[in-house]
Amino acid sequence: MKRRQWLPCLDWAQHYSRSAASQDGLAALIVTLMLIPQSLAYAMLAGLPPIMGLYASILPLLAYALFGSSRTLAVGPVAVVSLMTAAALEPLFPSGSAAYIGAAMLLALLSGVLLSAMAVLRLGFLANFLSHPVVSGFISASGILIAIGQLKHLFGISVSGDSLVQIIPQLWLGLPALHGPTLLIGVLSLAWLWWARVRLKPLLQHLGLTPATAGNLAKAGPVLAIIVAILAVTWQQLEQAGVKVVGAIPQGLPGLTLPTMDLDLALQLLPAALLISLVGFVESVSVGQTLAAKRRQRIQPDNELLGLGTANLASAFSGGFPVTGGFARSVVNYDAGAQTPMAGVFTAAGIAFSVLLLTPLLHNLPHAVLAATIIVAVLSLVDLGSLRRTWRYSRPDGAAQLATLLGVLLMGVETGILLGVGLSLLLFLWRTSQPHMAVVGQVPGSEHFRNVERFAVIESPSVLSLRVDESLYFPNARYLEDRIGELIANRPQVRHLVLMCSGVNLIDASALDSLEAIVDHLQAAGVQLHLSEVKGPVMDQLRRSSFLEQFGGQVFISQFQALQTLAPHITPSVPAIPLANRTP
Amino acid sequence: MKRRQWLPCLDWAQHYSRSAASQDGLAALIVTLMLIPQSLAYAMLAGLPPIMGLYASILPLLAYALFGSSRTLAVGPVAVVSLMTAAALEPLFPSGSAAYIGAAMLLALLSGVLLSAMAVLRLGFLANFLSHPVVSGFISASGILIAIGQLKHLFGISVSGDSLVQIIPQLWLGLPALHGPTLLIGVLSLAWLWWARVRLKPLLQHLGLTPATAGNLAKAGPVLAIIVAILAVTWQQLEQAGVKVVGAIPQGLPGLTLPTMDLDLALQLLPAALLISLVGFVESVSVGQTLAAKRRQRIQPDNELLGLGTANLASAFSGGFPVTGGFARSVVNYDAGAQTPMAGVFTAAGIAFSVLLLTPLLHNLPHAVLAATIIVAVLSLVDLGSLRRTWRYSRPDGAAQLATLLGVLLMGVETGILLGVGLSLLLFLWRTSQPHMAVVGQVPGSEHFRNVERFAVIESPSVLSLRVDESLYFPNARYLEDRIGELIANRPQVRHLVLMCSGVNLIDASALDSLEAIVDHLQAAGVQLHLSEVKGPVMDQLRRSSFLEQFGGQVFISQFQALQTLAPHITPSVPAIPLANRTP
Repeated sequence: MKRRQWLPCLDWAQHYSRSAASQDGLAALIVTLMLIPQSLAYAMLAGLPPIMGLYASILPLLAYALFGSSRTLAVGPVAVVSLMTAAALEPLFPSGSAAYIGAAMLLALLSGVLLSAMAVLRLGFLANFLSHPVVSGFISASGILIAIGQLKHLFGISVSGDSLVQIIPQLWLGLPALHGPTLLIGVLSLAWLWWARVRLKPLLQHLGLTPATAGNLAKAGPVLAIIVAILAVTWQQLEQAGVKVVGAIPQGLPGLTLPTMDLDLALQLLPAALLISLVGFVESVSVGQTLAAKRRQRIQPDNELLGLGTANLASAFSGGFPVTGGFARSVVNYDAGAQTPMAGVFTAAGIAFSVLLLTPLLHNLPHAVLAATIIVAVLSLVDLGSLRRTWRYSRPDGAAQLATLLGVLLMGVETGILLGVGLSLLLFLWRTSQPHMAVVGQVPGSEHFRNVERFAVIESPSVLSLRVDESLYFPNARYLEDRIGELIANRPQVRHLVLMCSGVNLIDASALDSLEAIVDHLQAAGVQLHLSEVKGPVMDQLRRSSFLEQFGGQVFISQFQALQTLAPHITPSVPAIPLANRTP
Repeated sequence: MKRRQWLPCLDWAQHYSRSAASQDGLAALIVTLMLIPQSLAYAMLAGLPPIMGLYASILPLLAYALFGSSRTLAVGPVAVVSLMTAAALEPLFPSGSAAYIGAAMLLALLSGVLLSAMAVLRLGFLANFLSHPVVSGFISASGILIAIGQLKHLFGISVSGDSLVQIIPQLWLGLPALHGPTLLIGVLSLAWLWWARVRLKPLLQHLGLTPATAGNLAKAGPVLAIIVAILAVTWQQLEQAGVKVVGAIPQGLPGLTLPTMDLDLALQLLPAALLISLVGFVESVSVGQTLAAKRRQRIQPDNELLGLGTANLASAFSGGFPVTGGFARSVVNYDAGAQTPMAGVFTAAGIAFSVLLLTPLLHNLPHAVLAATIIVAVLSLVDLGSLRRTWRYSRPDGAAQLATLLGVLLMGVETGILLGVGLSLLLFLWRTSQPHMAVVGQVPGSEHFRNVERFAVIESPSVLSLRVDESLYFPNARYLEDRIGELIANRPQVRHLVLMCSGVNLIDASALDSLEAIVDHLQAAGVQLHLSEVKGPVMDQLRRSSFLEQFGGQVFISQFQALQTLAPHITPSVPAIPLANRTP
């Protein structure tokens, strides 16, 4: 039972069929063709030698296939996490140096440990604090930031920094040093990739291929760009002309290597590792959930945490860097018909094969082509329409999304996301600190009570019915005292105040103190406090204090019953429901 | 109108009577006798020359009398804020150095600016984030920390640090260097002060004085200790014997001096200033509110902010350090019959008189007596019973209180309070991330719906009524999806799910996304979602999205109406209330 819970692969492996294998195989072939250029490119984006992208696409996929619960998630290097890796490491070490590489592996190790620990301790709920608007703003901004950051490879100039404020002036100042041949390769690649993305599939269909075959062949567009570019660089000897290329990379599979084991460095990288883990987890779960729902499958957040955690541990010990489930690749995997995580195993085999045989051929691959691959991939992440929709629905949510977006662009990824999370928490607390309160009255002909300002309702002059639309807790404890004081001051004929607690999901210790103060103030003014519609868990908690014995009022099961008891001449009598009705 | 709003003194000043003046005068005399030793002692606690305590007790009191709204609050140096001042400055400068003094004045300036800005921007709600348990834990821990920290003055040894972890080993190692005469003075003072606090008033009453006079005279106990100690040091030449005394202090009123004006230092001190301001404000408002309520008066938080803000500005420009409303002194002021803030003006005059005439006499005042004054004063702040009560009522609140208490003791005041605030926010979010949900049924004979597990209620097999006891927002958006999926999976006969939204005070953008996903999942399972009892503000917001047009269900005014419509054979028919009943 326990073993099965942590090894979802046992569920599908025992029924694994030949037909599933062939579907997984085809999906793996397509994902492999897509993953080769992307993994090289994202390693470059992370400031690492491109080969590390391939390393990070072998063992991590096997680990996820064992421990992950999504059938179709494609794990590996992704744009946003690579950007965050670079942002964490660039202030510490020169890009691509041995120290930088060791630290990138350490970052994967930390991320793996954190994710696995979150799985075991069931702390996945932490990822919930990244609200949808914050994640959306973060991903859009990362897309823009990555695309603009890659322009340096298209221009053939060198630029460093992790926000637009740092990048744009350098790009501008660097324009005179623009390297023509590099720019030409970059622009041609960009044009081809864009065209292939939009038009290649219709064209192939037009040429008589089936839509499925045309779609799958079109996915190979980036691979064709790589082949053509390598051939062009080789024939034209463009490396000698100053075009930056991938260069010599070690052939063969990654050995079991160790990340930098340095406790001080680990502590320093811990906050970045936590952010990378949470963002990676959120991105991965979002796409995993969407794809699972389409086939009426479910994913288990705890298994996802462990799947991604072990994938990162595998990456750390095989020369890789932080990985997670990628959005675009998972969709391609799903569309190509992947049935089980075995597709990931086949993809890993495909990448391993490439590493064994193809690395010498990649020597002349220009950075500009990889940059173009990245730019085309990440621009699809940018969704500014979402900002408009969020803003229209809710100003605080819109503000959090905008703050994240601008924060990432202007101050870098970590500051930006922390700004968004902080702002969304602060705005939530600010909102709950001044909760909506409604004086309510009876809807005629029913036992239902609604806001006197919105509905035509019956009110009693001596009984004030007040509905508080918020849990009573520390941010609003004092506000409650103030508002009730005002309300009573304006209604001298009131003798009873019934607090309708249908919206009160919690009364914390601060609010309990305030309620006691309110009872005192009300009693001085000749008003008795009562409660109604107190929920079970809140009632259980109140019983653990002395409030119920001391406040002098009654707890009514419903607002209707309260009015029946306190103002019987107003409310038509129907049999009252005693609290004794409560089952033990 | 505007002027009157910001100058509450205009309200009482125009009716100021001779009898109020005599009552204020008497209260001022008693508070002055109490304030002289306390202000000297708290300046020493803040690491400053004792005279600065007197300076901080003149102009700040006048400023508060002009701008503050409490009639009886006694402003000046207080224990907790002095401790926080020391904790902020000791890592930066040697205690008592010119740089340290300038920085203390700068801290008062920053605190004054922050409090005044919070008044004008109406940001007083920020203080709400210090929950009662956190404040209570903080004050108890500060009391313990201060008392133990003052033992060094009783032992005549030197100790530095701002947490028990740092202080206790030094006290232990310092024991061999214990200075006998100092310890004798300290222990005798402590014994006398303790005895005077508990027994002096009954004794004086026994000797024939009225209770009021006896109580007022007993307040002068610390002054007597000071006089006797000064005489003893002078006659026995104890300063030459190594007893540390206050020493030479400049005579005369403080000139208008300037704090260190250094932007870098100001930025560095800003977080500490913010914490000092918030803690000072919370302490001050708590006591102000309590005392005002006893006489059916009200205080205005915005006026309190401005009163304390201007008091700190006045302190910054007259050689003082951060001040706030003190708990014990305000109670004494109230008990002694103070009617208006004019008592504060008289107290300021009393302190100014002391500075002019008495400072030469204070030369031989031993530090040990001041330390004993502090210890007796702060031990009354320690209330560990509160921790037990809080823990019993609510584990998360108790945990936050305990974390603050231990944090302050072991890691210092700033870390401790931040730990408490952070933990209380995190625990609140954790709790709301897995909200209580109840399947509800109709209470027989009423239109009221309650939890099926707690009440004997009527359920419909085809209509599932689900009450969610929490606002739907980002921390619980995903949990909602999971739980509804489970509930529906276990009830194959269900055709309608009515989400009873009486406890839903907000649906944010993340939860809206989740609701849309839930509608999709439910429709796939052949279940239609409906909403009931949606509150006005939530409904207004939903209308700004396309959810209501697209989700395919109905919004019922009450759960009862929903069941009447969807399961009429179960729920007896009474006239339904159309939503058109809503007034525009």
